[in-house]
Amino acid sequence: MAAASQARRRQDRDELAITAFERGEHTSYSACGIPYWVSGTVSELDDLIVRTPEQHRAHGIDVRTRTEVTAVDLDRRVVRARERDGGREWDEPFDCLLLATGSVPMRPPVPGIDATGVHGVQTLEDGIALRAGLTSPDVRRVVVVGGGYIGLEVAEAAKLLGLVVTVVDKSPTPVGTFDPDVGAFIAEAVRGEGIELILGDGVSALEAGADGRVCAVHTDSGRVLPADLVVLGLGVRPAVALARDAGVPVGSSGGIVVDRRMRTPVEGVWAAGDCVESVHRLSGQRVVVALGTHANKQGRVAGINIAGGYAVFPGVIGTAITKLCGLEVARTGLSEWEAAEAGFAFVTAWVDSTTRAGYFPGAQPVRVKLIAERRSGRLLGAQVVGRDGSGKRIDVLATAIWAGMSVDEVLSLDLSYAPPFAPVWDPVLIAARKAFDAVEADIAGTPGGG
Amino acid sequence: MAAASQARRRQDRDELAITAFERGEHTSYSACGIPYWVSGTVSELDDLIVRTPEQHRAHGIDVRTRTEVTAVDLDRRVVRARERDGGREWDEPFDCLLLATGSVPMRPPVPGIDATGVHGVQTLEDGIALRAGLTSPDVRRVVVVGGGYIGLEVAEAAKLLGLVVTVVDKSPTPVGTFDPDVGAFIAEAVRGEGIELILGDGVSALEAGADGRVCAVHTDSGRVLPADLVVLGLGVRPAVALARDAGVPVGSSGGIVVDRRMRTPVEGVWAAGDCVESVHRLSGQRVVVALGTHANKQGRVAGINIAGGYAVFPGVIGTAITKLCGLEVARTGLSEWEAAEAGFAFVTAWVDSTTRAGYFPGAQPVRVKLIAERRSGRLLGAQVVGRDGSGKRIDVLATAIWAGMSVDEVLSLDLSYAPPFAPVWDPVLIAARKAFDAVEADIAGTPGGG
Repeated sequence: MAAASQARRRQDRDELAITAFERGEHTSYSACGIPYWVSGTVSELDDLIVRTPEQHRAHGIDVRTRTEVTAVDLDRRVVRARERDGGREWDEPFDCLLLATGSVPMRPPVPGIDATGVHGVQTLEDGIALRAGLTSPDVRRVVVVGGGYIGLEVAEAAKLLGLVVTVVDKSPTPVGTFDPDVGAFIAEAVRGEGIELILGDGVSALEAGADGRVCAVHTDSGRVLPADLVVLGLGVRPAVALARDAGVPVGSSGGIVVDRRMRTPVEGVWAAGDCVESVHRLSGQRVVVALGTHANKQGRVAGINIAGGYAVFPGVIGTAITKLCGLEVARTGLSEWEAAEAGFAFVTAWVDSTTRAGYFPGAQPVRVKLIAERRSGRLLGAQVVGRDGSGKRIDVLATAIWAGMSVDEVLSLDLSYAPPFAPVWDPVLIAARKAFDAVEADIAGTPGGG
Repeated sequence: MAAASQARRRQDRDELAITAFERGEHTSYSACGIPYWVSGTVSELDDLIVRTPEQHRAHGIDVRTRTEVTAVDLDRRVVRARERDGGREWDEPFDCLLLATGSVPMRPPVPGIDATGVHGVQTLEDGIALRAGLTSPDVRRVVVVGGGYIGLEVAEAAKLLGLVVTVVDKSPTPVGTFDPDVGAFIAEAVRGEGIELILGDGVSALEAGADGRVCAVHTDSGRVLPADLVVLGLGVRPAVALARDAGVPVGSSGGIVVDRRMRTPVEGVWAAGDCVESVHRLSGQRVVVALGTHANKQGRVAGINIAGGYAVFPGVIGTAITKLCGLEVARTGLSEWEAAEAGFAFVTAWVDSTTRAGYFPGAQPVRVKLIAERRSGRLLGAQVVGRDGSGKRIDVLATAIWAGMSVDEVLSLDLSYAPPFAPVWDPVLIAARKAFDAVEADIAGTPGGG
């Protein structure tokens, strides 16, 4: 819908007819906000909806909700549309097609996965069903499968609703996109809220009762976790079936291939959002990063280009943030594992500091970890974990990485200072100093920079 | 003391003897924290002291407090030292001299300026005297001369102490380093706290009673403001008398001339802190910016170099932040006036947004204003004003300016997004989009970008 809106802003109805097919009922909502509505932190579901189908229609976009596109015929330049209510089917012709099919939640191939009471957290409809489940009087024990951002956000939401919550994750620390040392802080914060966190263990089966409702989760290690409701938080993969079936190229990352203007290799076919792959600006590799912020930017770019303008999406560097159990955690660039995988040799450094001057009321602890390339000192990655006022500091490091700065350059940055906002050396700058020392020590062959 | 500490870390007492002369009693304290201790927000004066003279001595730095250096003899390589208590004087030889004389508060050349009850806010001693004055039972009405950062911070402190406070400033909006449109928000916030703010009017005289105590402030427009205590908040100028008298070059900016390693043009003489001039990376001009964050960085650089290492201070871009009457205000780069002065043609754009997703509890209003060079779109300046969670966003823009980014590049930055931290388009990114539109509109010769 971001693309449709941009295109409409640039070309009016006489120049460009825009039809949007949506399988569900809602358009332009904040999927990232779902856990906060489920928990009651955000009170009104409507607050998550940025623009309703009616509002889009008023802007000249012909939105067809509960209408699925089942096939794309690139030769005949039509899509096959089917109304979910009534089942009417027809071919809708196009000059220009945008694939914005998003992603589908991962479902582990284990017995019982289709039992009643097993929830995803993908669409607004999922969120509505999940909240209904979590607030049902029959539900007391919740098991969340997967300890990533969404899994933990939903676990916290369930805990806030007064439920008994267990999270199971295969990795030794939660949110695998963070290094284990940072992940350990997350684990501590999650457990500190009274959420049971089982790590290094996967799910082998879901057990359903005679009524077909899930009643327990079995783990690889043989544990049996009683559950009145199960949430799948295993992440998503690009929804590319429609594209692949039509012959639109899908990359090895699993996402639809696009160039920087969001054009697929097929003339007149564009793609944007969770279903596409992006260039990672540090590794140079093609990656799929399913985040609303990229989807919005890509949609804007696609819409401008479709309407004859020029805009580009120059790639991602892996920035992400969340707030979990009172802890703000954020990352950008490459993690240690990702840096090694991409062939970088690197040093790391971290610092414990405070969000404000140490003596200023409300100063909170913050840890900043940096990953810098050997010799060059180029900043490759950063992770921030701390209490209120910590997380958004990641944006400085994201901007520095984007610009290709070395930690030597970062430590001289003219960042803002006043006691209510930072120590005289912002934690970001202290971390850069330590990372620079680690780079120098590495060059000198002396130990350091651990 | 930052320089002394760094040098000591790199060379021990056998290699390098370090003597530090300090006119006052305290070392290494947070001058920026003084208004918050005056107001009672920070309860203990000791909290402002990072390292006492005793602590420095324990690290092998021979600190001589209440000892003034009255002259530098570059031929004989000695400084003339004088103990303020007892008056003992002697010549102290040096191989290497660091001038870190800081700044002196501006004092308007008006009658009555030396009356009792007229306070500066420069040293910790000043802060102690000011707090004693403000909490004296005889003091009810306070007039602050100068509506810059420090003036307004002290005005707020006095107001928090329950006093009747008036601020007088010659400019049409307070904090002249902000553009008037942003300054208007500051004025509104200050007045909203019940502080009287008289703008566009200067001070012509201070009136003292028979007891020699100040009793009123007379303004250029003829107003007479009753005052039991007056605070001078007119900013500072570099303290360069010692350097100038010794023949160490002082630049046209008024600060001591130094290179990027903090060397003055005189062999073996270094300078750092409020007393030096820095390169402004955008205008290319030499400027004096008296801020603790620069002083600390410069001290570190000087200390490393003095001890035989290599470090540089690559300049400033004018970043600053403060919190005033509940409002967070921050700036970086050039203001409109400064950009014009430096010969840039530019467009501006601003956006009103929120610090979190609009629907998320605690979302606060934030305005981001950008200044971008015509044609190139290079980001020249930014100003942020808003409630909790606004101010530190300036650091992203400072980093972007440092890296020479255009607003086109900024709008694509991979900044962090989650509902508790930002709208899906961070205010910084929306502002960059609008600034980019303004640049394009300007190129196309169409109106826009106001």
